[in-house]
Amino acid sequence: MHYKFSKRIKNLKPSAIREIFKYAADPSVVSLSAGNPSPEAFAAEQISAICADIFRNRPIDALQYSITEGYTPLREHLRGYMKQSHNVGRDFDDVLITSGGQQAIELAAKVLCDEGDVVVCEDPSFVGSLNSFRSIGANLTGVPVEPDGISIAGLERALSENPRAKIIYTIPNFQNPSGITMSLEKRRAMYELAQKYGVLILEDNPYGDLRYSGKNIPSIKSFDEDGLVIYCGSFSKVIAPGIRVGYAVAPVEIMKKMVVAKQGEDVHANILAQMICHEFMTKYDFSENLRNLRRLYSAKAQLARELLEEYVVPGGVTYHPVEGGLFIWCTLPQEVDMPAFCTRAVKDYKVAVVPGTAFLPDESKPSQCFRINFTAPTDEKLEEGIRRLGRAVSCK
Amino acid sequence: MHYKFSKRIKNLKPSAIREIFKYAADPSVVSLSAGNPSPEAFAAEQISAICADIFRNRPIDALQYSITEGYTPLREHLRGYMKQSHNVGRDFDDVLITSGGQQAIELAAKVLCDEGDVVVCEDPSFVGSLNSFRSIGANLTGVPVEPDGISIAGLERALSENPRAKIIYTIPNFQNPSGITMSLEKRRAMYELAQKYGVLILEDNPYGDLRYSGKNIPSIKSFDEDGLVIYCGSFSKVIAPGIRVGYAVAPVEIMKKMVVAKQGEDVHANILAQMICHEFMTKYDFSENLRNLRRLYSAKAQLARELLEEYVVPGGVTYHPVEGGLFIWCTLPQEVDMPAFCTRAVKDYKVAVVPGTAFLPDESKPSQCFRINFTAPTDEKLEEGIRRLGRAVSCK
Repeated sequence: MHYKFSKRIKNLKPSAIREIFKYAADPSVVSLSAGNPSPEAFAAEQISAICADIFRNRPIDALQYSITEGYTPLREHLRGYMKQSHNVGRDFDDVLITSGGQQAIELAAKVLCDEGDVVVCEDPSFVGSLNSFRSIGANLTGVPVEPDGISIAGLERALSENPRAKIIYTIPNFQNPSGITMSLEKRRAMYELAQKYGVLILEDNPYGDLRYSGKNIPSIKSFDEDGLVIYCGSFSKVIAPGIRVGYAVAPVEIMKKMVVAKQGEDVHANILAQMICHEFMTKYDFSENLRNLRRLYSAKAQLARELLEEYVVPGGVTYHPVEGGLFIWCTLPQEVDMPAFCTRAVKDYKVAVVPGTAFLPDESKPSQCFRINFTAPTDEKLEEGIRRLGRAVSCK
Repeated sequence: MHYKFSKRIKNLKPSAIREIFKYAADPSVVSLSAGNPSPEAFAAEQISAICADIFRNRPIDALQYSITEGYTPLREHLRGYMKQSHNVGRDFDDVLITSGGQQAIELAAKVLCDEGDVVVCEDPSFVGSLNSFRSIGANLTGVPVEPDGISIAGLERALSENPRAKIIYTIPNFQNPSGITMSLEKRRAMYELAQKYGVLILEDNPYGDLRYSGKNIPSIKSFDEDGLVIYCGSFSKVIAPGIRVGYAVAPVEIMKKMVVAKQGEDVHANILAQMICHEFMTKYDFSENLRNLRRLYSAKAQLARELLEEYVVPGGVTYHPVEGGLFIWCTLPQEVDMPAFCTRAVKDYKVAVVPGTAFLPDESKPSQCFRINFTAPTDEKLEEGIRRLGRAVSCK
């Protein structure tokens, strides 16, 4: 049987990260390619206690069908929490609980973009989101990322050249993969461009709570008085990713359409997981949990930096200084063939990194970069992995 | 701000079931409108014990990111189980774990249908699936359901008149909402039409294990030697719906595209929930669980029938005899205005049912029917609800 697939799916490939994962399954390979939190970061005992408590007192609530919008106590808590701690959410906004942050991104694009409409995104950007946009038939226009965030001149050009642009997609904090944070000035400039061109901003902030140095910068949603920003958050990096709970704060009119679209995708997010997030935020000290995470990860980031300086930088590799998040974005010397390097690294040196091309809106373009993750491996594995990377670099 | 939504979402309304739910939130209303399993049906103690065991022994597995295809032990177990107990799955097939059966339906349509392609479906059919198809931009062509299943002549006409037909969507067992089961002859005829017209069959079987009388009929997938059938199953009715775990058995080439599309929707289904389903199927007696469910529900179905005969049938209402599933499909006398009746029932008589129009591929067409559910209410509520329905009918 010859199957004919839809245009939007036909050319969509499993992400390069997944391909690298195949090699990384070899137990002799040290994987710096995942986007996983550290297993040490999971408050497994607290979550286990919460689960036991839910099954003791309210098993039916955790097992029965629920409403698409999400578990009401979690939505209400998030509404207050996001307003108080992040100034996110106005009277015209509402909260939708999603099956991970990824779903919030996909739903936003699904309700706003017809096939052929344009999503303007950072170049490079998170491949999972780029594939979401592709899978609903949107076209991607990339705008280069500079050390202080997206090029505003490039963004204006992209908007003026693409009358079908519907969404600007941005990860303003510790962007995946570049690690770059957008300056306050650029956030304001992006908002003004959204106003000027009548385009919405999809602000994806999975790493915002994970700042290890420097000062927090207000989110774009925090100055949204016009209903132009759909803000997406996630519990994947601050509680656990396996339970798949994220959320969107969006103008209620958009949120209602996202609810209808979500109903057709999975009815509602796993309700036990939503209850776990609610209990975790309200019965425990959530701020302390975040402090612990930052302590754990900033030590790992520091170690990764030192190891890179010792083993990799002498080979001519440069990298963006880490202020937060999970990733370090490295650039190979001009003469090195990046894809060949990544393949050699995993096959001959048994260390897996993600080739930069995976993150390009136009994957056919060249890249000199690769992404490493410093949160998932143990300190020992991190050291061994970066040593191996150093050997791979010096045998270029 | 005036928002411009995508064409496929713009006209999509929250389902009428949800609207009825609003009235049903009034505690004085008896709801016969849900599609919920009975709370008594949940093996809450077993699930609680499984959860505790997972957190004791493998907390990280339950909390970390996992692979999109699904939890490997569950996929492998299902592969064997579906083959042995249902003759479902050939060498060319593979199993994908989804976030509820709903997602399997949506993903299949997403990878196979371009905007404007046609899904041929039973008329009436499950509104959640119809909205999935609408939300990816597919057009719906309904084919009437007869007492032994879809009209085969009507199906052939629909396929010959719609060259863009890509999928035949069917719920062959205890169809939602009609309760009708397709005969073996019609299943074979549908398969032959799929071969003849080069169209795939999307076989949705959430209720197949819930037969209370009569003999099981082989699934269409069980005679699929050509890779024409995507089979969708669900744990919602046999373990619990709140945990959102379903699965598809589909030709591996299609399944791979569904994996890529799923990656962009929610990365993977909640992993704790997948582990719960695996443990529940392997550590406990799954067949005994199904027998218990059937015992519970067939008693409720029997009670519902008796109550309908006593209170509702005298008012001129007819209904399809219940052999399994969760629903009874009732038809009002010709002179009764069905939508007005449903509104009066919930507002004046405080009993909620779902108006038949909600299940029509073309919602603008008339319907004399409404759907009641007999599994979610307690026996007392069921009796009170059907009594009230009787009063609403006799005051037509």
